[in-house]
Amino acid sequence: MYNQWNGFKGNYWKENIDTRNFIKENYTEYRGDDEFLEGPTQNTLDLMEQLEEMNAYQREHDGVYNMDTKIVSTVTSHGPGYMNKDKEQIVGFQTDEPLKQAFIPFGGIGMAVKSLESNGYEPDEELVHIFTKWRKTHNQGVFDVYTPEMRAARKNKIITGLPDAYGRGRIIGDYRRVALYGIDYLIKAKKNDLNHTGYRTMTDDVIRLREEINEQIRALSDMKEMAASYGCDISQPAANAQEAVQWLYFGYLAAIKENNGAAMSIGRISAFLDIYIQRDLAAGVISEKEAQELIDHLVMKLRMVKFARTPEYNSLFSGYPIWATLSIAGMAFDGRSLVTKTDFRLLHTLINMGPSPEPNLTVLYCDSLPEGFRTFASRIAIETSSIQFENDELLREKWGSDDAAIACCVSATVIGKDMQFFGARANLIKALLYAINGGVDEITGAQVGPRYRPITSEVLDFEEVKLAYQDMMDWLAELYVNTLNSIHYMHDKYAYEKSQLALMDSDLKRTFATGIAGISHVADSLSAIKYAQVKPIRDENGIAVDFEIEGEFPRYGNDDNRADDLANWALQYFMTQIKRHHTYRNSTPTLSLLTITSNVVYGKATGNTPDGRGRGVPLAPGANPSYGAERNGLLASLNSTAKLDYNCALDGISNTQTIAPISLGKSDAERVNNLRGIMDGYFSQGAYHLNVNVFDNSLLEDAMANPLKYPNLTIRVSGYAVRFVELTKEQQLDVLMRTAHERTV
Amino acid sequence: MYNQWNGFKGNYWKENIDTRNFIKENYTEYRGDDEFLEGPTQNTLDLMEQLEEMNAYQREHDGVYNMDTKIVSTVTSHGPGYMNKDKEQIVGFQTDEPLKQAFIPFGGIGMAVKSLESNGYEPDEELVHIFTKWRKTHNQGVFDVYTPEMRAARKNKIITGLPDAYGRGRIIGDYRRVALYGIDYLIKAKKNDLNHTGYRTMTDDVIRLREEINEQIRALSDMKEMAASYGCDISQPAANAQEAVQWLYFGYLAAIKENNGAAMSIGRISAFLDIYIQRDLAAGVISEKEAQELIDHLVMKLRMVKFARTPEYNSLFSGYPIWATLSIAGMAFDGRSLVTKTDFRLLHTLINMGPSPEPNLTVLYCDSLPEGFRTFASRIAIETSSIQFENDELLREKWGSDDAAIACCVSATVIGKDMQFFGARANLIKALLYAINGGVDEITGAQVGPRYRPITSEVLDFEEVKLAYQDMMDWLAELYVNTLNSIHYMHDKYAYEKSQLALMDSDLKRTFATGIAGISHVADSLSAIKYAQVKPIRDENGIAVDFEIEGEFPRYGNDDNRADDLANWALQYFMTQIKRHHTYRNSTPTLSLLTITSNVVYGKATGNTPDGRGRGVPLAPGANPSYGAERNGLLASLNSTAKLDYNCALDGISNTQTIAPISLGKSDAERVNNLRGIMDGYFSQGAYHLNVNVFDNSLLEDAMANPLKYPNLTIRVSGYAVRFVELTKEQQLDVLMRTAHERTV
Repeated sequence: MYNQWNGFKGNYWKENIDTRNFIKENYTEYRGDDEFLEGPTQNTLDLMEQLEEMNAYQREHDGVYNMDTKIVSTVTSHGPGYMNKDKEQIVGFQTDEPLKQAFIPFGGIGMAVKSLESNGYEPDEELVHIFTKWRKTHNQGVFDVYTPEMRAARKNKIITGLPDAYGRGRIIGDYRRVALYGIDYLIKAKKNDLNHTGYRTMTDDVIRLREEINEQIRALSDMKEMAASYGCDISQPAANAQEAVQWLYFGYLAAIKENNGAAMSIGRISAFLDIYIQRDLAAGVISEKEAQELIDHLVMKLRMVKFARTPEYNSLFSGYPIWATLSIAGMAFDGRSLVTKTDFRLLHTLINMGPSPEPNLTVLYCDSLPEGFRTFASRIAIETSSIQFENDELLREKWGSDDAAIACCVSATVIGKDMQFFGARANLIKALLYAINGGVDEITGAQVGPRYRPITSEVLDFEEVKLAYQDMMDWLAELYVNTLNSIHYMHDKYAYEKSQLALMDSDLKRTFATGIAGISHVADSLSAIKYAQVKPIRDENGIAVDFEIEGEFPRYGNDDNRADDLANWALQYFMTQIKRHHTYRNSTPTLSLLTITSNVVYGKATGNTPDGRGRGVPLAPGANPSYGAERNGLLASLNSTAKLDYNCALDGISNTQTIAPISLGKSDAERVNNLRGIMDGYFSQGAYHLNVNVFDNSLLEDAMANPLKYPNLTIRVSGYAVRFVELTKEQQLDVLMRTAHERTV
Repeated sequence: MYNQWNGFKGNYWKENIDTRNFIKENYTEYRGDDEFLEGPTQNTLDLMEQLEEMNAYQREHDGVYNMDTKIVSTVTSHGPGYMNKDKEQIVGFQTDEPLKQAFIPFGGIGMAVKSLESNGYEPDEELVHIFTKWRKTHNQGVFDVYTPEMRAARKNKIITGLPDAYGRGRIIGDYRRVALYGIDYLIKAKKNDLNHTGYRTMTDDVIRLREEINEQIRALSDMKEMAASYGCDISQPAANAQEAVQWLYFGYLAAIKENNGAAMSIGRISAFLDIYIQRDLAAGVISEKEAQELIDHLVMKLRMVKFARTPEYNSLFSGYPIWATLSIAGMAFDGRSLVTKTDFRLLHTLINMGPSPEPNLTVLYCDSLPEGFRTFASRIAIETSSIQFENDELLREKWGSDDAAIACCVSATVIGKDMQFFGARANLIKALLYAINGGVDEITGAQVGPRYRPITSEVLDFEEVKLAYQDMMDWLAELYVNTLNSIHYMHDKYAYEKSQLALMDSDLKRTFATGIAGISHVADSLSAIKYAQVKPIRDENGIAVDFEIEGEFPRYGNDDNRADDLANWALQYFMTQIKRHHTYRNSTPTLSLLTITSNVVYGKATGNTPDGRGRGVPLAPGANPSYGAERNGLLASLNSTAKLDYNCALDGISNTQTIAPISLGKSDAERVNNLRGIMDGYFSQGAYHLNVNVFDNSLLEDAMANPLKYPNLTIRVSGYAVRFVELTKEQQLDVLMRTAHERTV
């Protein structure tokens, strides 16, 4: 129907909004190696030099280059911004200049003001008045609903990191739709959806959705206006590779102008963009060098996304991550891999422009992927410690799509069809202490949980503790779900992500993503109580503040079922409890084992635990074994993690490993082959995720001592990558405490 | 507990928010006559003179004295305003000067802007931007939800007057609570409610209510701040009569600063205020003259409430009504009447300060009221044509309370315990034409209703028409209810009346108030089809555009069951259909037979009808018989109206009558006795409402010719009073067309 579609095959995607079908009909699998790749252009080098200077300035100013104080960020609020207009192949910034942080009050005016003030900027008084008196924000709505019990649970940090004062994020618009269809077609389709939303009876659900679709339609118009300010007419489909990349980026740009969600992921775009590049290459209108330049410039833009944050937020999620997670590779349902040359080009940006935490490059991995790609990805992981791997086979099997992508760290979502109600996490090891102490917080002494009878025996009895723990998890699951119900109702009401949802199906599947922190300590503590002898040491109020452990006990992370089964038991039990409750918009409950870098602050708020972990010591991140627990090497550790039941943790299971280069082999080639082999085996047995770091801890120690030497040293932490020097001191020490596997594998 | 309560009896109301209980325990019934009443003070006369000048200016400027363009009206938005500070016993205006109309955009920014522009004022650009881009308003929300079918029904005026672009109104806060308890106690009680709202499970309903209660708590704080700007500390209870009147008025003032609802009624305040006045009189700290002055000054304030309106709105509800409806008298459950001296004082304001449309003085009448009061009320009705009467016995029986009041015209509501979702009305005579024409609008030719088969016979067959009419009413009821569902969801979302609801119970009963226009024409048309011969005259498209009637048929309004039963049949059938559907917040459906002055515009949009009414001719208002139908005099007419089934019209049945003085008798005393007797009989047989006008039509004709002679000539129209000269020409003619009963009764 559109000239821009000349040369594209298939019909279904023309008559229906279906980018997956378009990809399937048109992409070219690439089974070769990385020989074809090109280095950076002079433009790329010049822009990167400029960016490095700005980054250096930013680092010297607590991560802030500049902040907006007078303009409320919306899709159309700012005029165009450029770094160097003549050199940028792909244009567009969140505000009218690069790295300037926008003022986005909708998640919470308090947070927005604090972000400015803590960085020495003065918020506009009139705006504060407007967003206090006339335009309520998400944060105030949530706190209007919270019960005293919820506030106590939050304050005592048994439930933490809740998106109640900032954007929930983790929603991925199908930004490809802008390029494939152009805005006018998308508006037409949304109007058609509107006409078929509800049939006569106006229940609250139907009313809400009809309003939302109209908000989306307005958002689409706004995108057109915003793109026009950059001289681009996105009402029509993209006509070539440059436009495809640019149009897609405009879709994403609208999302990050409107929302400051914790994770603003971009989805799965490689095979899609590759189709346009292939068409242009075949027509001889671009060269490989130019193709790489387009990808480099898109990635450079993703590296430059910035949000205004408070110091508290930065201490929770260190290194200014925004999780512009970009998922690549994976298999199609028809047996072909979805690997294209553009998947190579994306990984190659880490070479052309150096390592970088953003975009959060995520390989959807399985051993059916072409060997050339698996080898290349393993090599990039070793060279840069900047990428992560997730199990593509599990994704397809459990999410029913070969077009799923990762939002944030490990959360799967089917592009354009799913959205997630992000729910942070419950501290399950603290809940075990509550079970022992009858709901009294071991740090604050407050009665936070129900006044159940505490355990008063001299030695902890496993069955008694288990029963009390079940009661406490029942309570916690209910409170947690209802806290999240309150949050997401208000987020929809006051900070609805219309620009992102405009690029998704109107009839969405919604997941309700809960999470667990401290799973390894739960397993190890239960194991200690079961297999060794644990005596609580009680303070004058009868609260167990420490534990004496006599005897040996198996620990999670050694491929020992006695401990690993206890981890799975807690996971399965808690998830079963979560599922019992009403969830907002009848969403589907899921759960993650993921802490990001918040394991440090969670640990700070958690007392001594029965596994011997000291009060205040960081929890092990995500699903990682506890520090020092892994006695049987990398493979045994990976085996333990692989056993965790993904059916109960569909929001993802995060595992971060540091491997000393020497343990992988003596030559580069040997190391690459070994890592590839490890991952083939790991994912084949149903493990979900691996964050790969390959370096010696001595490197990190040197970086701590000489930060200026390592401005771009990037490492993987729980679910994302970070510049090591941008971590807090505490978190740097935490990373160093993690087990670095040095034994030859 | 409070010193301010010294001398008051009872305990229950001290420990629970219960103004009704306080009244019951403390009021003094008055069974005497009006001898005790005092004339106006010099202050009152001076202020009234000032007001008359301002009113004259206002009349010369299309009802506008001044308008605010720069300040968004909230409870605390304006500094204090005075007419003459030294003379006003009761202070407080909606803005910082008398009669200045506030800028209230929450119901709809479009309407707010139009109100300004149509009166030659310029809205502030920045405010328009804020309420377009950042702060959505009710109106836009509703139109996001409307289906094409709803828009068509609205445009073709089969459903009309919907509160989708303005505040819904008709909510009565229990303003007495401010005086009796003071704000601090009320906040404490609301916090207690909050703690008991919901139990763990956070459904959308619980979340919504918890947020609302917090909004209410903030509104209470704002009231305190607003009163403080007038030098009054309302954190504590009122200590004397002056404070009681003033505190109560501050509660009402908060409501009208925040909301521009169609009807902003004040409720039932006479016995309550009388308790304070009695206490002060007994203590010798005020005189009767001073007591009357307090009441006069409160009433003067209620006469000065103004809202910015558009010309369309003014043509629908003519004469700038705001329905500051004030309900007086009525019986208590314990057999005493609730008549106090203050009920006399309130009616006496019409003498002291002359007749006035506002406040909309409403006597809750039954023949058990003391004769002295019934006589006095009848006399005031005859002298001023400014008051209306509603059946107190029915109210108590059907609403289960002796503390109900009238919101707007005829809508009952239990003070502090009920709120209404106001729903305007469906044009049921137009629906009959739709039934005949297969859903095609007889005026516009549009297919608005379902494509049912039209009636094609030469002569209309009653049973065939009835069946088709039932189908069409089924459709209309469903569409109507769902339209209202959309409206009230959005009103709660974008224009929540927090200040009013702060003065009501948190656990509210909500009614869902639908309405019917054209009931008399429905009855007469069905009667014509049944008892005479009606031949449709069809245009070239087969649409029945006129009707030839052969033979006689009984008409509603003559105490003839053949016609009256048809009115009841339509009422009962439609209400039964309304009840079948889901209503927002599980509210209780009710229905009114009330058109206010909109009978004129409804008639304009309605074609020729089978009862012989011409195209464009006004419908009869409310439940009134059609013009010219009443052949058997006033009592027969009243008998017909009294037969209408109040169980199916719990939102009220409006009946407006004009009686020539001569028909009531030759002397003043005879006329008063006669009118009282008529009302005793009328209400005893279960009639609901009577709007009483006593004058000759020659008076109105003279007023049309010489408007300057009659600036304050007040008459009752459907459910409210109006200055005759402020009606549109069309509406003046409509009033003149009404039957003026001249036969001696």
